[in-house]
Amino acid sequence: VLIRVLSAGICNTDLEIRKGYVPGFDGIPGHEFAGVVEESDDSSLRGARVTAEINAACGTCEYCRKGLGRHCPNRTVLGIINRAGAMAEYVCVPADTVVRVPDSLSDTQAVFIEPLAAACEILVQIAVNPGHEVLVIGDGKLGLLVSFVLQTTGCSLLLRGHHEEKLSIAADHGIATTTDVSYNRRFDIVVEATGNPAAFADALALVKPRGTLVLKSTYASQVTCNLSKAVVDEITIVGSRCGRFSDALALLANHQLPLERLVTASYPLHEAVKAFAHAEKREALKVVLKN
Amino acid sequence: VLIRVLSAGICNTDLEIRKGYVPGFDGIPGHEFAGVVEESDDSSLRGARVTAEINAACGTCEYCRKGLGRHCPNRTVLGIINRAGAMAEYVCVPADTVVRVPDSLSDTQAVFIEPLAAACEILVQIAVNPGHEVLVIGDGKLGLLVSFVLQTTGCSLLLRGHHEEKLSIAADHGIATTTDVSYNRRFDIVVEATGNPAAFADALALVKPRGTLVLKSTYASQVTCNLSKAVVDEITIVGSRCGRFSDALALLANHQLPLERLVTASYPLHEAVKAFAHAEKREALKVVLKN
Repeated sequence: VLIRVLSAGICNTDLEIRKGYVPGFDGIPGHEFAGVVEESDDSSLRGARVTAEINAACGTCEYCRKGLGRHCPNRTVLGIINRAGAMAEYVCVPADTVVRVPDSLSDTQAVFIEPLAAACEILVQIAVNPGHEVLVIGDGKLGLLVSFVLQTTGCSLLLRGHHEEKLSIAADHGIATTTDVSYNRRFDIVVEATGNPAAFADALALVKPRGTLVLKSTYASQVTCNLSKAVVDEITIVGSRCGRFSDALALLANHQLPLERLVTASYPLHEAVKAFAHAEKREALKVVLKN
Repeated sequence: VLIRVLSAGICNTDLEIRKGYVPGFDGIPGHEFAGVVEESDDSSLRGARVTAEINAACGTCEYCRKGLGRHCPNRTVLGIINRAGAMAEYVCVPADTVVRVPDSLSDTQAVFIEPLAAACEILVQIAVNPGHEVLVIGDGKLGLLVSFVLQTTGCSLLLRGHHEEKLSIAADHGIATTTDVSYNRRFDIVVEATGNPAAFADALALVKPRGTLVLKSTYASQVTCNLSKAVVDEITIVGSRCGRFSDALALLANHQLPLERLVTASYPLHEAVKAFAHAEKREALKVVLKN
């Protein structure tokens, strides 16, 4: 399916890719986007506003058969592994990855479907309920989206970060926030979403015995830590990556999320270099490219 | 309850404690034992052959109320935290930790109740079924006991180690074994039981996407690793420590395990120093002290 791109978001992974995080990929980045279908075998799709699942799976391997195409060893990944991404005038994707964007979402809001799906993945992997005390560490885009998703469970939620501006977006949405790193409290579930490998040991120390640490950050560097704590306290560490777009769309159909407030700036595509520089800034949240 | 000790096993934790693994503990070690009750408020216990749960919990905190006394923050741990252990003529334990040793078990076999309970803990924490391909890494005492426990689930099981002698105990019990570290296969569940921090990265690499790595080893030193693999492949890492003695006894009631073959040597208590030196040897499995 050939899609004319309307908007594409810059993700931290795109910034990491520029630094060589994905050896062997030097193609067009961009895996968060919305566009209009220009060409498709399915004529009903032509002219429709769509996005596409980041993972394009083979459909036949043991993972695909279990509904885990996002772990298909033969998969291509939009703008990351063996497939040109959406930071371009046009992007071409397999028909079975195309997802219609609901009319209720703007082109800009639609770039959040992919990262929101990644946040929703936590609820696919572990049970979170109102009895749980949950801490999210990191007030970047991912930490905020994870907080929005976890808030829907009714759990007792705290978001910890360093940026008052970013935390205020969560606070205005009814989420308790803190910049205090000195408290002694421990949590049933801690979500590490800082992207900083130094945060791992700290996050582990904040989990109660028999609790769960969810790792959303892909650290570019090695982590050094004392894993004996995880054994003695029988902590479960859950690596968590991509989610199902359908989960994100179902969530957006039922909850108003302040996605527009996560947009720091928009740039025309021909100013992509400038846009990337802006996205690298500490205070930046989502930077969007527009065609 | 005052117990006259008949036998006590030397565990790797005891060897680590000698090296200072538990800061602040310089008391009598020993948490695997069998003995005869000499004094007890419960007169029916007098003269009974017993052992005792390693964790003595407060019974009132949030963990105790959930049946997780082994994570009670106020607990004492026999021969490890704030309680003198069983490598002595007598040991004194709280009444609610006392567990009767079935007549079917010898004094020597009874020292395996505690480590076998720790192996059983894996089945309390994760579901293992006949559809799972499972790898246990490490052919020491713990790796062998873990293999015996996992074998009962009917899973497809492979034990990997370096010692033909030790592996033969598992092989004679019907467990597939290997010394080959070069294969390319990956597993649904990998259990790391080597005690060697360098083995962690290797174990992680052998887990399938969405699979589980069970950590049974408490590493004395820090681990350096690339945790991005756990995130990208959404691997769950489960720290696993002590188990319930009742699980071990139920298992022993239903399965004949070659526990005697795990006994490398027995020493009288007054030769404990010699016994520890023997237990330190690479080829040693369980060394038992006898009164």
